[in-house]
Amino acid sequence: MRSEFDFIQSIKLKYGLSRIGDDCAVLPKDAETDMVVTADLLVEGIDFRLDWTTPEYLGHKALAVSLSDIAAMGARPDWAMLSIGVPPGLWGDHFLDMFYTGWNELAAEHGVELVGGDISRVPDQLVIDSIVAGSLPHGQAIQRSTARPGDGIFVSGPLGRAAAGLILLKEGVRINSADDVEMPLILRQLRPEPRIAIGEYLRANRIATAMIDISDGLSSDLTHLINSSGVGARVIADSIPVTDGKEPSRPLTEALENALHGGEDFELLFTADPKRIAGHHQTNLFCIGEITSNTGLIELMIDGQCQTLEAKGFRHF
Amino acid sequence: MRSEFDFIQSIKLKYGLSRIGDDCAVLPKDAETDMVVTADLLVEGIDFRLDWTTPEYLGHKALAVSLSDIAAMGARPDWAMLSIGVPPGLWGDHFLDMFYTGWNELAAEHGVELVGGDISRVPDQLVIDSIVAGSLPHGQAIQRSTARPGDGIFVSGPLGRAAAGLILLKEGVRINSADDVEMPLILRQLRPEPRIAIGEYLRANRIATAMIDISDGLSSDLTHLINSSGVGARVIADSIPVTDGKEPSRPLTEALENALHGGEDFELLFTADPKRIAGHHQTNLFCIGEITSNTGLIELMIDGQCQTLEAKGFRHF
Repeated sequence: MRSEFDFIQSIKLKYGLSRIGDDCAVLPKDAETDMVVTADLLVEGIDFRLDWTTPEYLGHKALAVSLSDIAAMGARPDWAMLSIGVPPGLWGDHFLDMFYTGWNELAAEHGVELVGGDISRVPDQLVIDSIVAGSLPHGQAIQRSTARPGDGIFVSGPLGRAAAGLILLKEGVRINSADDVEMPLILRQLRPEPRIAIGEYLRANRIATAMIDISDGLSSDLTHLINSSGVGARVIADSIPVTDGKEPSRPLTEALENALHGGEDFELLFTADPKRIAGHHQTNLFCIGEITSNTGLIELMIDGQCQTLEAKGFRHF
Repeated sequence: MRSEFDFIQSIKLKYGLSRIGDDCAVLPKDAETDMVVTADLLVEGIDFRLDWTTPEYLGHKALAVSLSDIAAMGARPDWAMLSIGVPPGLWGDHFLDMFYTGWNELAAEHGVELVGGDISRVPDQLVIDSIVAGSLPHGQAIQRSTARPGDGIFVSGPLGRAAAGLILLKEGVRINSADDVEMPLILRQLRPEPRIAIGEYLRANRIATAMIDISDGLSSDLTHLINSSGVGARVIADSIPVTDGKEPSRPLTEALENALHGGEDFELLFTADPKRIAGHHQTNLFCIGEITSNTGLIELMIDGQCQTLEAKGFRHF
């Protein structure tokens, strides 16, 4: 069975689609502006469970995952389309109104206009395709393929919190039963915040040399970045932020495992010239390592030892 | 249970989405150009059956339905995205390669570039979201809301042939068992041809005053057009083309029923000033009636009698 990644690679090679393979496709808009566009398919039972979330949170997340792709290019979102396949059980009640309420609140926050889409019946599982387009100055899109040896590796916030939230949900904790420590982790999983402002800041100040969002997990997304760039990476385990300073709810070993391999944090992972970033006192940018010339290899420094970090991120339930 | 149309209308009213409600959303691209964009969700068991078609035809149709929306605006297609939810049984074999082959042949014919999309597992049914963007000179998009009393009503080709093909498929006729009369009808259902060139011609020569593609059926799509335009229509049954001149395979009463209510012909339905269109000797444009000021009413003239035509088009299996 081929993985999604393998399949996308094979399609890309077969049809010469050089534009496929980044968070967004980059297309010329006018003389000064490029358009970026992304699509994300969310499937019930694979990407979400209706009994774990609320319609509003699901609407929010459907948009958030695509906004995160826009953020990872350093762009500003402009408009969106939404295609929804709705099973019979969800037509009659107010599910879709609540879904759109959640979607629309996040859209309003980022000035995103819903311009179209499609709605269809489906036999069983709810399916959502989220399409978002954004824009940025011509030639300034931040690819994942342009990291250079010597660049520092940075993340825009703590990692592994969405994965910790997923573990809690699997253990039976729910929104209405979560305590003050559990709730932020569950919300990180069910209602992630896209890092639009940080992405734009990193582009406008020409800080990031390469960027990707962490949707599959640090190990997987860093692998995508180094493979696209033809470089390697060295990551210092102790420097990976795993808490927002308030709640170290899980044992630290589990927190590191979640940070390395847990998906759906939707923080930005980027590389930058250490001298260039020094002047920018962003408190929420964390240096976790550096880009090396050991092509295709991620070295993880942990307890004074060096080990190889394999991509084993997960995205799906 | 609300219909898709009712639901889209309610969302449109709720969020003030004036752009939703035409075949494509129209967005400014640059000073001289508008962009049009459309999304179409196709669901196994609702919009297609895998045992009735081939992977190549399905790939062709997934793109064709969206190209038809581009054609209905009078635009030229530029790029596309494709999101596919693939059930376990279809990962291993060559289904997706063949699907993309069919998709790509039609894309190449119209100069459409695949720039992105998403691929995911789904538990059971194949799901396809087809997104296509096109362009046309600023302000020239042909809406469905601009028909005027006195305009003629035209279609770009025979109607009801896709519906006749669907009836044959339901009766058990298959691609490999169809005779010479049946095969063109089945192909019209499984492998429709979008009317890109005609749509562009009608726009470039400023012939069409309003336009929509026939995806749900003449009665439904003409209803969309007159309701959007705030007008009425009179249709002459005898003037509706129901055959391509070669095969009147079904009884004529059934052919008329298919032409009035059968979906998925993907011909263009447009209105035009009769004097303006007279100079254009397009053999494949058929006048089927005229726009009236009887707002919301379609009068059907049949055997010298006038009856009211209700929208009862079907799109889904």
